[in-house]
Amino acid sequence: MYNVVVVGASGAVGREILKVLDERQFPVGELRLCATSRSAGKQMVFRGKTITVEETTPDSFKGMDIALFAGGAASKQFGPGAVEQGCVVIDNSSNFRLDPAVPLVVPEVNPGDVRWHKGIIANPNCSTIIMVLPLKAIADAAGIKRVVVSTYQAVSGAGMEAMEELTAQTRAVLDGGEYTPKVFPYPIAFNLIPHIDVFQEMDYTKEEWKMVKETRKILHNDHLPVTATTVRVPVYRSHSESVNIETEEKLSATRAREVLAAFPGIVVMDDPEKKEYPMPLFCSERDEVFVGRIREDNSVPRGLNLWVVSDQLRKGAATNAVQIAELVIRYGCLLRG
Amino acid sequence: MYNVVVVGASGAVGREILKVLDERQFPVGELRLCATSRSAGKQMVFRGKTITVEETTPDSFKGMDIALFAGGAASKQFGPGAVEQGCVVIDNSSNFRLDPAVPLVVPEVNPGDVRWHKGIIANPNCSTIIMVLPLKAIADAAGIKRVVVSTYQAVSGAGMEAMEELTAQTRAVLDGGEYTPKVFPYPIAFNLIPHIDVFQEMDYTKEEWKMVKETRKILHNDHLPVTATTVRVPVYRSHSESVNIETEEKLSATRAREVLAAFPGIVVMDDPEKKEYPMPLFCSERDEVFVGRIREDNSVPRGLNLWVVSDQLRKGAATNAVQIAELVIRYGCLLRG
Repeated sequence: MYNVVVVGASGAVGREILKVLDERQFPVGELRLCATSRSAGKQMVFRGKTITVEETTPDSFKGMDIALFAGGAASKQFGPGAVEQGCVVIDNSSNFRLDPAVPLVVPEVNPGDVRWHKGIIANPNCSTIIMVLPLKAIADAAGIKRVVVSTYQAVSGAGMEAMEELTAQTRAVLDGGEYTPKVFPYPIAFNLIPHIDVFQEMDYTKEEWKMVKETRKILHNDHLPVTATTVRVPVYRSHSESVNIETEEKLSATRAREVLAAFPGIVVMDDPEKKEYPMPLFCSERDEVFVGRIREDNSVPRGLNLWVVSDQLRKGAATNAVQIAELVIRYGCLLRG
Repeated sequence: MYNVVVVGASGAVGREILKVLDERQFPVGELRLCATSRSAGKQMVFRGKTITVEETTPDSFKGMDIALFAGGAASKQFGPGAVEQGCVVIDNSSNFRLDPAVPLVVPEVNPGDVRWHKGIIANPNCSTIIMVLPLKAIADAAGIKRVVVSTYQAVSGAGMEAMEELTAQTRAVLDGGEYTPKVFPYPIAFNLIPHIDVFQEMDYTKEEWKMVKETRKILHNDHLPVTATTVRVPVYRSHSESVNIETEEKLSATRAREVLAAFPGIVVMDDPEKKEYPMPLFCSERDEVFVGRIREDNSVPRGLNLWVVSDQLRKGAATNAVQIAELVIRYGCLLRG
């Protein structure tokens, strides 16, 4: 049994982490739930036991084996101290993802990278995790020359308040009322916002650069050409992505379907005749990455179009983090005996 | 003054045609409004005058100079007969678009094609019209090697009933009720459907092939490599498109902005610092094509990413059709006197 602390336990990702720990029968010994002072005092239930959320302090990691950080700035503040106390940190924020000393892991794709961790293991960006599973399947079968991706991202990627904002704003639109956006820069109800996270170099958003740089790191391919456009859509849960892949070798749609279906963590959902393709409404609260609309790209000799959907709170965050914790245990690379 | 008949006058596109004819001060003499028997008898107002919608018959085109067909099967049934009676047909359906004897026209892009019409002029698919303006601007400046487009299409592309379905279904979701989809194959409220029009060869939808084949015809480039993924989103009005373009020559983002801003019918809306980019909510009931998120593609030596939004009922349908009618008059290529 392992002592586990969840930091950011009361947020959208934190809640999913608790569910996933339970569903996957993770060998939890002591469970500590932490958050900012704002959420301290809240009560949450895990395996029938009520646990009070505490404010995160350096002492929160004392005697703990594994810390799961749900996101935000907390891992910067408390992560290194937790490691010093012998606690392996699995961090869902972007704070350490591109640090060369920190492995960035998707267990189906690069599990071995867990082995060289020095205390912190980073969980990739949600949109990146979702894309990188099919990319790895295709890369292994035919090599990848270039990726062009456009995303359709659910509001829950911006937390629970974003979900509440979508509900309240949608109601206001239908009832002819007013609702001033708080979480998003513009109304998201019946709208699209082509802007996720802050703008950076070349006028790409940070979210777009994450998809470029994290994909390269996970696939161990420092110069893989990837370009991304990331867009927020009025959907509660599950990110969708239109992924265009130029391959080194020709891969037929039929063979691509086989290769994708055989890859762990992927479910192929692709039968046009039966109107079968992944949709966010039906892929939510699931752990798999769903791939459909698998087509040979008509515009190049060797290329594919894919439509990829997955619950970004599950595989895109909580599930992936818990899977990393499982690998840490399986590979025997905890920090304390 | 010209006698005009609008076929499908009471639908989503038909209503916009009436508005656009009025706003653009089109020289309308007699105006006849036609539709299927289901809508016959409805009353509509044009320039203060109430007009009763009649059922379309071969006689509807007698004495008319210009027929604007809003869409559907009507132009197949009545179009050739209208031409025989001396009436120029401007058709918003897909019935004649790929017919080599029929010009397919976007007035800012290939106005000259109006001149060789033999009675029927086709109005392109809405998603195609919206994309082809920026493509032409870029093609003229730097040449185009390949286009990868993913769409985010509003429900009004499927008519007024689709808008009502989005409203009723959204209410049902918020209130915990039930709503069985009628227009779309699956729920569209808080969902995405990667399936527009019927599936065809290579598992592409007809909508996706339209974007490939119509773009080639309009740009007079029979082999232009274009690949498309078309997706319905829970937005009422205005289609959005993530367009990736590989160019023949290098075009900087700055130069691309200039070239796009100088192109007729395009409005550049692109200032990341001020959070300025096109969004469907704010581009509706406008006639222009809005382009933003203009970025050099980091994955190739010569390429661009664009985010394009336009009201598909206006520029994507009604406005473009009325602009074609204006060209027919300007070029003096009516069929009668």
